[in-house]
Amino acid sequence: MKAEIISIGSEILRGQITDTNANFIAQKLIELGIDLENISVISDNPESLLSTLKLALQRSDLIITTGGLGPTEDDITYQFIARALSLKLIKYPGAEENLKRILKKINTTLSPSNLKQTYLPEGAKIIINQYGTAPAMILEKDNKIICSFPGVPHEMKRLIEENLIPYLKEKFPPSMIKKSKTLKITGLGESSVNELIRDYMNKQTNFSFGIYANPEDIQVQITTQAPTEKEVEKMLQSSVNQLTKILGNYIYGSDEETIEEVVGNLLKSKKLKVSVAESCTGGMLGEMITRIPGSSKYFQGGVISYNARVKEDLLKVPPEAIRKYGEVSRQVAKLMAEEVRKCCHSDIGISITGIAGPGGATQKKKVGLVYMALADGKKTITQKHQLFGDRQLIRLRAARRALNMFRNYLSGI
Amino acid sequence: MKAEIISIGSEILRGQITDTNANFIAQKLIELGIDLENISVISDNPESLLSTLKLALQRSDLIITTGGLGPTEDDITYQFIARALSLKLIKYPGAEENLKRILKKINTTLSPSNLKQTYLPEGAKIIINQYGTAPAMILEKDNKIICSFPGVPHEMKRLIEENLIPYLKEKFPPSMIKKSKTLKITGLGESSVNELIRDYMNKQTNFSFGIYANPEDIQVQITTQAPTEKEVEKMLQSSVNQLTKILGNYIYGSDEETIEEVVGNLLKSKKLKVSVAESCTGGMLGEMITRIPGSSKYFQGGVISYNARVKEDLLKVPPEAIRKYGEVSRQVAKLMAEEVRKCCHSDIGISITGIAGPGGATQKKKVGLVYMALADGKKTITQKHQLFGDRQLIRLRAARRALNMFRNYLSGI
Repeated sequence: MKAEIISIGSEILRGQITDTNANFIAQKLIELGIDLENISVISDNPESLLSTLKLALQRSDLIITTGGLGPTEDDITYQFIARALSLKLIKYPGAEENLKRILKKINTTLSPSNLKQTYLPEGAKIIINQYGTAPAMILEKDNKIICSFPGVPHEMKRLIEENLIPYLKEKFPPSMIKKSKTLKITGLGESSVNELIRDYMNKQTNFSFGIYANPEDIQVQITTQAPTEKEVEKMLQSSVNQLTKILGNYIYGSDEETIEEVVGNLLKSKKLKVSVAESCTGGMLGEMITRIPGSSKYFQGGVISYNARVKEDLLKVPPEAIRKYGEVSRQVAKLMAEEVRKCCHSDIGISITGIAGPGGATQKKKVGLVYMALADGKKTITQKHQLFGDRQLIRLRAARRALNMFRNYLSGI
Repeated sequence: MKAEIISIGSEILRGQITDTNANFIAQKLIELGIDLENISVISDNPESLLSTLKLALQRSDLIITTGGLGPTEDDITYQFIARALSLKLIKYPGAEENLKRILKKINTTLSPSNLKQTYLPEGAKIIINQYGTAPAMILEKDNKIICSFPGVPHEMKRLIEENLIPYLKEKFPPSMIKKSKTLKITGLGESSVNELIRDYMNKQTNFSFGIYANPEDIQVQITTQAPTEKEVEKMLQSSVNQLTKILGNYIYGSDEETIEEVVGNLLKSKKLKVSVAESCTGGMLGEMITRIPGSSKYFQGGVISYNARVKEDLLKVPPEAIRKYGEVSRQVAKLMAEEVRKCCHSDIGISITGIAGPGGATQKKKVGLVYMALADGKKTITQKHQLFGDRQLIRLRAARRALNMFRNYLSGI
């Protein structure tokens, strides 16, 4: 089966927004084993719409449109789908009821232009939209399936998950289940990951692999298929085991897991509390740790010691230490971690001090130089990093390195 | 002139990445007054590539391809552009030199598959790629322009900015200069903005307007054109003035300006220093303020008082106040702001305490309830907000509301 997406939206062509809808739909189709062959982005002008629909009807079996279902004159998707298929537009009574209900909810009265949204091509299976005014549809004709969804991302996503996916699953029960698993790696570069696992990857015939480099980590995606869910899970697990043998503790998590979540789970299981002392990251490490619901169980708080006086007063770093070693130094990082641990009543204190740039560098200390420390009351670990990127990227990398230092510490105790 | 983009990349169709390249190119074309009519995303299979190229040659005058220029067997863009135009592929000696230079830089030796990257369609103006191995090109044939760029975003962006944009500017000097200006609004919802400025917008014939709602603000984009840069700037300014009369201080900035930048500039001009006391935001407010280079001039630091004991010990909030009013209360917010101002040696202290959820709500205090305060040593302003969204969105909105409270304070003194 050949599938294609038609995204209707002048804002995409004018560069005002990125078409993220297509990406969402592509992911959903892959999970069902349906291959997407084309994505077309067009504006809502009649000529483009008609020629693109006609081409799609020639070359594809499943056509999914997004956008152009609103109440204004520009919104002509249903009108032109009807024309391309030589169908009439007919009024769907259910649509008007829903429209009135939705408009009432947002304190708006029904305008004549809204009524346009109750007309769909004849034969369509209407999908009532509880999240907005535009109904969606699934239409089968001459062995083709044409379905239309609103362009508003959260409406489109819900309507597709609740309606299109179940419909496609029933209509085309996949003979093979295809699944992916992503391993998330930190502390190694893309080329090092590639070199380490190349031999393994080349020997595999039942898996396909992708290596993706992000600013904050490297991800290895493993994809495979099998007739049953159980078998495909077993196969994925066997590959994960092999890759874990090679990459070891560089793997910090998988799929949707974040490093702050992994660290949070380790803290919970070990019943430990942490606090942070941040200079160049300005609160980013605390912000990341507290993204996780329930982080109040293990995160006490901390001090943002951006200015030297805050280091001295709240973190009791002696002015002499700052004079002698500088605010960005291993010694100051160590003192910051040790004191924040104490003053925030936590088991572990973590600190970051560095030069995020663009200013602040000296001859000996370059932009991107970051010291970090971890104090647990018995010992204090320190690390020095020379990071690259712009100001925000250096800060992000510093916070993530600190989380990784913490993860390695926690998995070792 | 009709322009179109062909994005070649199976990763996009498999949903692994979003096509952000097309968005970048669309923005560049709009600035040149060139209308983009189509974006097609296809995989690098011969059939798709050939039919999409042929269709593009029929309907468009300017065709920009991205992707499929790598050294592997999958990378067949040049081969099929040559075929679609009935041209030969010929070896470009300049390409090989560059290739060797780039490979040397990354410590890799030239492999036979790399040599493929030195062959381009005859007649092409080759664009040597200093950022990677794949050369780009601009090819004119039969009144059509076909140009190809690598799919790697940072290579594509630089090569397009440095080569395609100057080429198009020279070839098609725009008769009208088209420009946009974006006003950024906070403290009002999308529908309120729409209602306030609708009458004004409807009366304008020389401007087009777009209203966009983001999680953190509302943006009004004004677009107009005129024969000269000066005239278009003047027109935009007149519209900005009119909209500013209507929306007043709800406008916090324009175009690329961020609210933390606006606040930072106000602080610098008034020579004031600030510190923060954060509970539910966990450091996000400090992180936002310190995104701005040079923020050490006005940001002292702060306390992340996630746990009650940190509020008591570092921010000297009396345990009785917490018992009586609760950690999330106007009284505690006030005490936090007042003490952080003092202990961080700053002119102004700002605090946030709230329930980000999903846990932590009580019968009286719902998820999304946030108190914030601003203390300047003479008085303390407090605000109460009931925010909506998931945990991270509530935190983001709380931090931005605090910045907006701060902006309003600073512009009033």
